[in-house]
Amino acid sequence: MIIAIDAAGGDHAPHEVVKGAIAATEEYGVNVALVGRRAQLETLIRCYGVKPSLTIIEASQVIDCNEPPVQAVRSKPDSSIVVGTNLVRDGIASAFVSAGNTGAVVCSAFFNLGRIEGVQRPALCSVAHVDPANPFLLIDVGANVDCRPEFLVQFAQLASFFARGVFSIDSPRVGLLSSSEEEVDANLLVNESYQLLKKTNLNFVGNIGGQEILQGKADVIVTDGFTGNIVLKTMEGLGDMLHNLLGAEQAFGISRYLRDTALVHYTQLACMVGRMDYKEYGGACLLGVKGNIVVAHGRSQAAAIKNAIHLAHKAAQTSMVQAIRDSMYTSE
Amino acid sequence: MIIAIDAAGGDHAPHEVVKGAIAATEEYGVNVALVGRRAQLETLIRCYGVKPSLTIIEASQVIDCNEPPVQAVRSKPDSSIVVGTNLVRDGIASAFVSAGNTGAVVCSAFFNLGRIEGVQRPALCSVAHVDPANPFLLIDVGANVDCRPEFLVQFAQLASFFARGVFSIDSPRVGLLSSSEEEVDANLLVNESYQLLKKTNLNFVGNIGGQEILQGKADVIVTDGFTGNIVLKTMEGLGDMLHNLLGAEQAFGISRYLRDTALVHYTQLACMVGRMDYKEYGGACLLGVKGNIVVAHGRSQAAAIKNAIHLAHKAAQTSMVQAIRDSMYTSE
Repeated sequence: MIIAIDAAGGDHAPHEVVKGAIAATEEYGVNVALVGRRAQLETLIRCYGVKPSLTIIEASQVIDCNEPPVQAVRSKPDSSIVVGTNLVRDGIASAFVSAGNTGAVVCSAFFNLGRIEGVQRPALCSVAHVDPANPFLLIDVGANVDCRPEFLVQFAQLASFFARGVFSIDSPRVGLLSSSEEEVDANLLVNESYQLLKKTNLNFVGNIGGQEILQGKADVIVTDGFTGNIVLKTMEGLGDMLHNLLGAEQAFGISRYLRDTALVHYTQLACMVGRMDYKEYGGACLLGVKGNIVVAHGRSQAAAIKNAIHLAHKAAQTSMVQAIRDSMYTSE
Repeated sequence: MIIAIDAAGGDHAPHEVVKGAIAATEEYGVNVALVGRRAQLETLIRCYGVKPSLTIIEASQVIDCNEPPVQAVRSKPDSSIVVGTNLVRDGIASAFVSAGNTGAVVCSAFFNLGRIEGVQRPALCSVAHVDPANPFLLIDVGANVDCRPEFLVQFAQLASFFARGVFSIDSPRVGLLSSSEEEVDANLLVNESYQLLKKTNLNFVGNIGGQEILQGKADVIVTDGFTGNIVLKTMEGLGDMLHNLLGAEQAFGISRYLRDTALVHYTQLACMVGRMDYKEYGGACLLGVKGNIVVAHGRSQAAAIKNAIHLAHKAAQTSMVQAIRDSMYTSE
């Protein structure tokens, strides 16, 4: 099983991508294919460590993070994003990971892999680790900014499969992100989605308010891609601010002192802020397309790349795509 | 000038409301009218401190925080919320503050004060203090969950007046909350609102992504009431979590040590978490109705009540309502 990774995508490519890929081969015993410019990647591998489980696939073009996605994907067939997606389409790689232009990754997956039959709108499902005691999936975080109620129901189904397959949660609790805990007080989209979700065989636990997101009331939180994107990035912005306040080096010095003196609250806090740091964490799975696609944060450094490869590997091992395909047939 | 306060509204009424009202009379020299059950309030005032600037207005009914707003306002004409709103309508009070059922406060203001001519939808404008270096107004945070683009433009106008009047910002920078910094990549509502905002004489600075909310790029951030409510509550939920991690007493002990040893980052962090604590901060002004209405957080304790009274006092002093009314005539 090979996991392909976009070596040209993200703010810290290719250096951090190569380092993260090497770490993933070491830690998880996974085979990784770096997709990018061969000459450059060969130099970096020699620099960071040659591994038999690390290969290179040539891709001569790069899609910039600010390029309009559809146009970029169409005009750059030899870009790392398109080449990487096609490795999945052609069965050469079991999954593709990119920290590059999210819109372009989504477009490339739509065009080159296609939707699983029965899926109306593939969606980005983010894995949130802020509180390790209460991890949750947030879907959609940006693939569909304008949604109909039936899309949200399908997002809930897709994320429930993901929660079962990748996180081994038997009956994932599904919550609907809302401005109100009441059944009827939210906007039209949420009110209608609520009524539809009640009728499914999902483990629907009702509306989840913004302040409840981190309280562990649901394993899957469903929303439209506009709201989901803003919520995710609001948490990221707060994480940035906390991180800046803590200051990495000083935080380490302080936390060591506090640990020594058994004042553990501060170290817990520093850990939490670390988990809100999208340079290390973050990663979303594009669910509903015919292949495993993981989008890592644009600011990903080696640790985040390693984590994203691990997520992609787990999705591939648990045959996520086949599971969703089977369920779509069943639910029809 | 009298500021009326709902002594029956909020999780910690009436005790914390009375304490907050007394603190406001002392700190800001403002006259406060407590609206609630006279006998109970007289006892509390005797307990917490008799003040010549503190009066009581009888209201025999209470609207519970979970009651359906419209029905509650109609069926309870002697509730503290309705009585308080009517004190503003009748010119007895210059503003009304409530930590009670937000929906009921908004309904009561709609029914009993009415909209300022030309205002399509009054909106809740929240004053965010998370980073004191970068305070901002977020509008709407829940009064209008389904919006049209022209509503968002008017929210921007209302909040700009508020920023000028109450915060003395000459030309408030207006940002549009979006899932994308691009002009066209967000949802339909935001894309259309963007085009309309460009044509106004507001100081429109473009889209603001979720991660940019706290970066001080705009003085006013405009969004629909659904998204605004969720963003506000997401920040609140994170604040709760941080607060729990810090632990009030231990935080104090640690921060004293760190201050002594000149490790200031932790104390800065503790301060920030304190500002994210809606038991102390928070408060939103209902803009666009014919009177000054401030909604405090349901979990408000004395300090938050005092702050909310201060905000209401400033809005009344700067003749917010008249300024909005004048501007609506001008812009027609």
